[in-house]
Amino acid sequence: MTAASTQPLIAELRRIVGQDYVLTQDDGADLRAWELDWRGRERGKALAVVRPASTQEVAQVVRACAATRTPIIPQGGNTGMVVGSTPDTSGTQVVLSLTRLNKVRQLDAGNMTITVDAGCVLQTLQEECEKAGFLFPLSLASEGSCTIGGNLGTNAGGTQVVRYGNTRELCLGLEVVTAQGEIWDGLLGLRKDNTGYDLRHLFIGSEGTLGIITGATMKIYPMPKSQLTAFAALPSLEAAVQLLGLAHEHLSAGLTGFEVMGQFALSLVNKHFPQQRVPFWQESPWCVVLENSDNESEEHARAQFERLLEAAMEAGCVTDAVIAENLAQAKALWHIRESIPLAQAQEGLNIKHDISINVSRIPAFVAETNALLEQKFPGARLVTYGHLGDGNLHYNVQAPEGVDQKRFLAEQEAPMNAVVYEVVDRYRGSISAEHGIGSLKIDKLPEHKSPVALGLMRNIKRALDPLNLMNPGKLLHTENH
Amino acid sequence: MTAASTQPLIAELRRIVGQDYVLTQDDGADLRAWELDWRGRERGKALAVVRPASTQEVAQVVRACAATRTPIIPQGGNTGMVVGSTPDTSGTQVVLSLTRLNKVRQLDAGNMTITVDAGCVLQTLQEECEKAGFLFPLSLASEGSCTIGGNLGTNAGGTQVVRYGNTRELCLGLEVVTAQGEIWDGLLGLRKDNTGYDLRHLFIGSEGTLGIITGATMKIYPMPKSQLTAFAALPSLEAAVQLLGLAHEHLSAGLTGFEVMGQFALSLVNKHFPQQRVPFWQESPWCVVLENSDNESEEHARAQFERLLEAAMEAGCVTDAVIAENLAQAKALWHIRESIPLAQAQEGLNIKHDISINVSRIPAFVAETNALLEQKFPGARLVTYGHLGDGNLHYNVQAPEGVDQKRFLAEQEAPMNAVVYEVVDRYRGSISAEHGIGSLKIDKLPEHKSPVALGLMRNIKRALDPLNLMNPGKLLHTENH
Repeated sequence: MTAASTQPLIAELRRIVGQDYVLTQDDGADLRAWELDWRGRERGKALAVVRPASTQEVAQVVRACAATRTPIIPQGGNTGMVVGSTPDTSGTQVVLSLTRLNKVRQLDAGNMTITVDAGCVLQTLQEECEKAGFLFPLSLASEGSCTIGGNLGTNAGGTQVVRYGNTRELCLGLEVVTAQGEIWDGLLGLRKDNTGYDLRHLFIGSEGTLGIITGATMKIYPMPKSQLTAFAALPSLEAAVQLLGLAHEHLSAGLTGFEVMGQFALSLVNKHFPQQRVPFWQESPWCVVLENSDNESEEHARAQFERLLEAAMEAGCVTDAVIAENLAQAKALWHIRESIPLAQAQEGLNIKHDISINVSRIPAFVAETNALLEQKFPGARLVTYGHLGDGNLHYNVQAPEGVDQKRFLAEQEAPMNAVVYEVVDRYRGSISAEHGIGSLKIDKLPEHKSPVALGLMRNIKRALDPLNLMNPGKLLHTENH
Repeated sequence: MTAASTQPLIAELRRIVGQDYVLTQDDGADLRAWELDWRGRERGKALAVVRPASTQEVAQVVRACAATRTPIIPQGGNTGMVVGSTPDTSGTQVVLSLTRLNKVRQLDAGNMTITVDAGCVLQTLQEECEKAGFLFPLSLASEGSCTIGGNLGTNAGGTQVVRYGNTRELCLGLEVVTAQGEIWDGLLGLRKDNTGYDLRHLFIGSEGTLGIITGATMKIYPMPKSQLTAFAALPSLEAAVQLLGLAHEHLSAGLTGFEVMGQFALSLVNKHFPQQRVPFWQESPWCVVLENSDNESEEHARAQFERLLEAAMEAGCVTDAVIAENLAQAKALWHIRESIPLAQAQEGLNIKHDISINVSRIPAFVAETNALLEQKFPGARLVTYGHLGDGNLHYNVQAPEGVDQKRFLAEQEAPMNAVVYEVVDRYRGSISAEHGIGSLKIDKLPEHKSPVALGLMRNIKRALDPLNLMNPGKLLHTENH
């Protein structure tokens, strides 16, 4: 498209959202914030960044783009991990930013729901709920910038999934602008509704490739009276799985966090952030952070935790443990877990895998994959940690000490991914547990997903977005389009 | 189709599943069990009943039917409430019964999942889990006959939804035979998997109109140590909503049942089953059955329940209450709730509504609808009860005393439904909370569902089942087909 031929579209977009809310490079705007992906891997080039202020404006923008066959890249906080919300380099795609749709529409205490615009920042949502005495349990590292629309589009995970599920499980209703620019008002707060196909779950996790989420009704929960954190040392990964079973049995839905950390991962935290005083890591191959959320009292939560840890020690799956005495200690223990990615970055370049496996098979998976990697990539250092409660491991690999890191990555990332994903396939796991596909893994997906599933996905994509204008180049190649 | 022209298909089906497992009227078979719907409302006429024994056989049957453009009616236990699993009267549709696919494939204790054939009877699944120390929480009146495939196809609800969700929320993976006779093996036991559109949720609740569910991986839970039941008397429906909020706050995920019952509903139980000795009903406009499932001990569960009921009495939302002292008492209290439909049947004909409304708006909804019905249908008696914890009411209407009941129903059912559903629409509720649409409500759906949602549904149906052979005439009219 030439600049001249796009002028009518730009003018129409300005008419819809207002002069100030259509940004283009030609007008001297700096579009870096919308064109560069979160991890700084790729920068695209947008035809324009459009910032509508209402669902009706979003619908009009979509219709204007459809009329001119202009692809649309929906974007929330642009904090995704897989290059899923930025344009390609063609300069022909419009970035549709949802951040001006940022109102909390209604908190319904009696129905335990909150209805919000898609551009609401996750932290705002958490705070609004807290003010009313409720918990919105979705919690992520990027919660200060990411939007609930982005969380829904990618079905974000986080640290509370073991109790509350992914973003998908927290959503009761959606408002969506379809690829044709129609508004589907599915903003229901119902816990039961069997009147047809579940369109909500189809749009959730579709990464903006089927339509644009503009609003959502989400579940909220009574704020727990107490949240206690424990840190335990374990002799093996098998012991961690055993401890998880005991924790489910003893704490039931009180178990709101269960994170595992390998010895080398903790050694990196100890090395780069010695002030954190990581407990137990020197004598223990594995440690676990557990959280117990209680609706009764701190005393009750503590007694429950103590009984669990006693039972675990008796069973031999925990060798040592500490329960945080106060909020500061709890935060410090969680901070150790959260510092692993930072410590990895300090140590140097690394290869990340966001995988999931049935919890029961994780020990065998790790043993087998470790052995393969050690054999094929001598000296590679395995940084294993993650949300064991959900079977989700960040199974990362740090370059060997002393080698040229950039060269190691350039040469070894693809063959190493191939080894890891081959074992994931054999264990019937997922190559993207919580981060999605985006454009980063779009070429990988067909190698690891059943052809029947891919065929069904393509048929759905063509049925709902026949012009292939919704976030093209993300998630799914649509041959024949 | 003439009998002669269908002979090659029948022969091919016999070749696939074996001579004994293709039943036809021409061969003298009695097909009543497959042709008559559960509530005995309608009897269809099947071309044949086919009973495959494996997923591969199901796929071959679907291909044989597709090749001859023969519609397929998938059927599990045939216990649905909306005439969704029986053939029409044309004699051209094949009933595909899944009941020979009835194996428990694997219980994975460490992953807390069970993988089963679709034709497994729900009660078998519950019992298999119990043997291994786990709870499979789905629980329905028809659990001795219904199959998990049918539960998934209709997204069945039941009495534990307030804690564990509908069948949908219990499912992690599916195996499905598509309309083209391909097998999608999505039998994963993963709690996190963001690799594309959620096909699982699309097939769940689609009532067999998109493909045939042949297997499923379901979540299981540690068996609670104690389950206690309470029965409380309340001054108003507003008080019931207030009690529900207090119960969520005090019991959190321990709250596994919350059923409300109106005075007239309980008076019918008292009248027709006086031996049940219904408590409180004479002095109370509403009563509630609550269940508290506890992972600690019966003492703890009882103390929690007592604290809750004290708080509720102090707040004025409960006037009297009893906690069951033992299992027999608990069963007796639940039996009162479960006897309401039977008492209704004893009393005479009635009009049933399976609706859901945001919990917070239920008191206003009931007040408004009651007033409208009393005005327009003098003497009609309102039998209101249901799963208040999920916002799901069985808002039924008993014919006035002394009138000709059949005539009342014939004349008043349609106008009465119109009044109730009009208010449901204004309250943004659902006209089918847990029973689905089937053929019974297929004509009603377009009047109460957004045209945009219906358009999306039709596009999906056409994309996945372009020949319209999967359970045609159920759920969704597919004009233009």
